[in-house]
Amino acid sequence: MSTQQALKQPMTVNGLDVQTAFDTIDAIKTDPTLARFQFRARNHWITGGTNRSTIRDFYGAGREDDSRESAFEFMNGEPPVLLGDNEGANPVEFLLHALAGCVTTTLVLHAAARGITIRELSTELEGDLDVRGLLGLDETVSPGYEEIRIRMKIEADCSEEALADLMTVAQAHSPVCNTVCRPVPVKIEHVTA
Amino acid sequence: MSTQQALKQPMTVNGLDVQTAFDTIDAIKTDPTLARFQFRARNHWITGGTNRSTIRDFYGAGREDDSRESAFEFMNGEPPVLLGDNEGANPVEFLLHALAGCVTTTLVLHAAARGITIRELSTELEGDLDVRGLLGLDETVSPGYEEIRIRMKIEADCSEEALADLMTVAQAHSPVCNTVCRPVPVKIEHVTA
Repeated sequence: MSTQQALKQPMTVNGLDVQTAFDTIDAIKTDPTLARFQFRARNHWITGGTNRSTIRDFYGAGREDDSRESAFEFMNGEPPVLLGDNEGANPVEFLLHALAGCVTTTLVLHAAARGITIRELSTELEGDLDVRGLLGLDETVSPGYEEIRIRMKIEADCSEEALADLMTVAQAHSPVCNTVCRPVPVKIEHVTA
Repeated sequence: MSTQQALKQPMTVNGLDVQTAFDTIDAIKTDPTLARFQFRARNHWITGGTNRSTIRDFYGAGREDDSRESAFEFMNGEPPVLLGDNEGANPVEFLLHALAGCVTTTLVLHAAARGITIRELSTELEGDLDVRGLLGLDETVSPGYEEIRIRMKIEADCSEEALADLMTVAQAHSPVCNTVCRPVPVKIEHVTA
């Protein structure tokens, strides 16, 4: 391999193109408005606890994204004990999926930036909730999760100390984890057709 | 139809079996421990911003659920502008899906309990975030959503006032909306194989 070819090889760590990541960071440092993203979802109720979302477009890095040829579609459902027929995972389970993925990606990204190779990473999540909140049976019971626990199994080419630091960084910088840990305003507006 | 047959017909409103819902509520009032649920997800990192969750078992209504013959599987991915190849929707988009579904199901459930028929219900969500938080470029920038807006289109057999009240009830009692609006503790523990 010639030096020229070697220079053209993308340097990937943990499956991420580190040069592109650093280029992105440099661009954002020059123009912070590039960091502004707006994500979107459209949802349509079907019946009972069944509804479907479509997700495709978003705004980010200064433009409307057009990289997706078709929309992602996801079905919410409920198990029989919550009056459904398992038409899909339910919304609080999708929240755990979002949280697991976000903490994982955030950790892998920060590891790559530090040159740490992750060999394996898996998580198990559990969250407790009391459906008296959902049903409005006791207004002192919060409808949402009381607590969410993440058990993380991780193997990486770094010290235990560096690994513990990575886990702290991932928790502090994960957008979904931050959205869950912090009070985020949700505004609902009634629109007419 | 005989009276006996009529009595056997489940009374469904908005696709929900209202009698079963009220029976559940009565059972919970007698034994509040039946309201305790624990939901779970397992996630495995693949590469870069790609990881897959499996969701199947949960605890609720006093027992481990066994209603699902197989696990649901969902893939997180990232668009090219966030160093991926659209292997799946990304975690912050899945969060919007979870929120849309939860507010919808909560509204439909409370409408059914009030005998209000929903004819149509769809939502559009958008959430703003600044990836300087994720990247750790500015510690004054929160990594999560700054705000999430839900535009709801809804048609129901009730007054505008009853509809506005339903929307308020849905927002206040939705488990995902409450998890987002309220600070919920997330604990990450490092486990060894």
